Amino acid sequence: MNIEVCYTPQAYPLFHNPNAIVVVIDILRATSAITTAFFNGVEKMIPVATVEEALEYKNKGYLVAAERNGEVVDGFDFGNSPFSYMNSKVKGKTIAITTTNGTQAIDAAKNAQQIIIGSFLNLDAIVEYLNSEKKDVLFLCAGWKNKFNLEDTLFAGAVVEKLVLIHECTTQCDSALAAMDLYKLAKHNLAEYLANSSHRNRLAKLDLERDINYCLTLNLCPVVPIMEGKFLVKA
Amino acid sequence: MNIEVCYTPQAYPLFHNPNAIVVVIDILRATSAITTAFFNGVEKMIPVATVEEALEYKNKGYLVAAERNGEVVDGFDFGNSPFSYMNSKVKGKTIAITTTNGTQAIDAAKNAQQIIIGSFLNLDAIVEYLNSEKKDVLFLCAGWKNKFNLEDTLFAGAVVEKLVLIHECTTQCDSALAAMDLYKLAKHNLAEYLANSSHRNRLAKLDLERDINYCLTLNLCPVVPIMEGKFLVKA
Repeated sequence: MNIEVCYTPQAYPLFHNPNAIVVVIDILRATSAITTAFFNGVEKMIPVATVEEALEYKNKGYLVAAERNGEVVDGFDFGNSPFSYMNSKVKGKTIAITTTNGTQAIDAAKNAQQIIIGSFLNLDAIVEYLNSEKKDVLFLCAGWKNKFNLEDTLFAGAVVEKLVLIHECTTQCDSALAAMDLYKLAKHNLAEYLANSSHRNRLAKLDLERDINYCLTLNLCPVVPIMEGKFLVKA
Repeated sequence: MNIEVCYTPQAYPLFHNPNAIVVVIDILRATSAITTAFFNGVEKMIPVATVEEALEYKNKGYLVAAERNGEVVDGFDFGNSPFSYMNSKVKGKTIAITTTNGTQAIDAAKNAQQIIIGSFLNLDAIVEYLNSEKKDVLFLCAGWKNKFNLEDTLFAGAVVEKLVLIHECTTQCDSALAAMDLYKLAKHNLAEYLANSSHRNRLAKLDLERDINYCLTLNLCPVVPIMEGKFLVKA
């Protein structure tokens, strides 16, 4: 079981492994929102890279989420606040979604054998899924506009730590080793550790403290969203 | 004084800052070798990206260093072992050099306002230089074939820590914060911390333990190599 961590979508082609399950990570907030949506009964999601594609789905009558730079794009139903999906009107629905970083990361990995969606909200479910599949794993952090970010790295580190400690995997990937060590430093208080981080500060300016604290909570939504063709569904 | 860390040459265009001094870092072993060369009396170096360019300089009668994948390229005078430069025959000479990662990083930053060469061997000299210049700083890690590596990141973290602690700089760059935290974990025994890292293992297979231990030693060569036109010279 080869384990690697890729810090940005830009670097994905260097890490592409046709045998790996790719875990896409955008903690603040796309993959936390997607995990929450499936836990709350959404049936399918359609991740798209551009606002134009999202608009096409809107014109076809779908519910559509569109976020850019932390805010809901004008004229769309949702952005990427997880709280939008705790709502009975999403149950059984198919929702198209485009976000600044998360859906770009899904798009970057489109040739992967399998893509699953990771967040602190489904940490243990992801660990168990990967452990049962026994395949190579590539963590793909969405980052912020192709720069490294801490919160996505910490989640990758959290899963790597569990795979190494509990399931006796090993890795010589430097970015996986760094992610694991950073998670060990941060895990006793993720919010405090991230207090100086770039994206947390970016969102704090938008008054999203409630979203941030929710996204840093472990195992609230034990589901594994997985790509099947152009759809995300529950595994 | 804005401080950022860029983990790979591939990502450099996202970080380019026309006002920043770029510190190029390739601890194992290009920037350690360059620092050692200047400390031992080399007058100028000419970093080139390709073996073909290096060969042109050889044909013109220059001493030429060429390394690929950790080994001296056939037909050249040196690779990138720092010990090659502890030799009276290099004194006062101009040496052209091409390496797997380090000279690619210098090439990636060629539009920077200023490029200097960092390694653990000149750590404090770099800190003092940056502190006296009081400009923005961008650390550019050479990595390994555009993947993140630990040893370059640790050196960036070492300088950031000193700038933050001693000189009261601040940063909200996530990769700078991560580098600093990783250095805090590693600094009491860099060699032990790096024992599982990818590149250290790659070099260990080539029997370069002596080079590795030398490259992880602090402040043996208090010089600051700086780019002037196509030449590296002593600042």
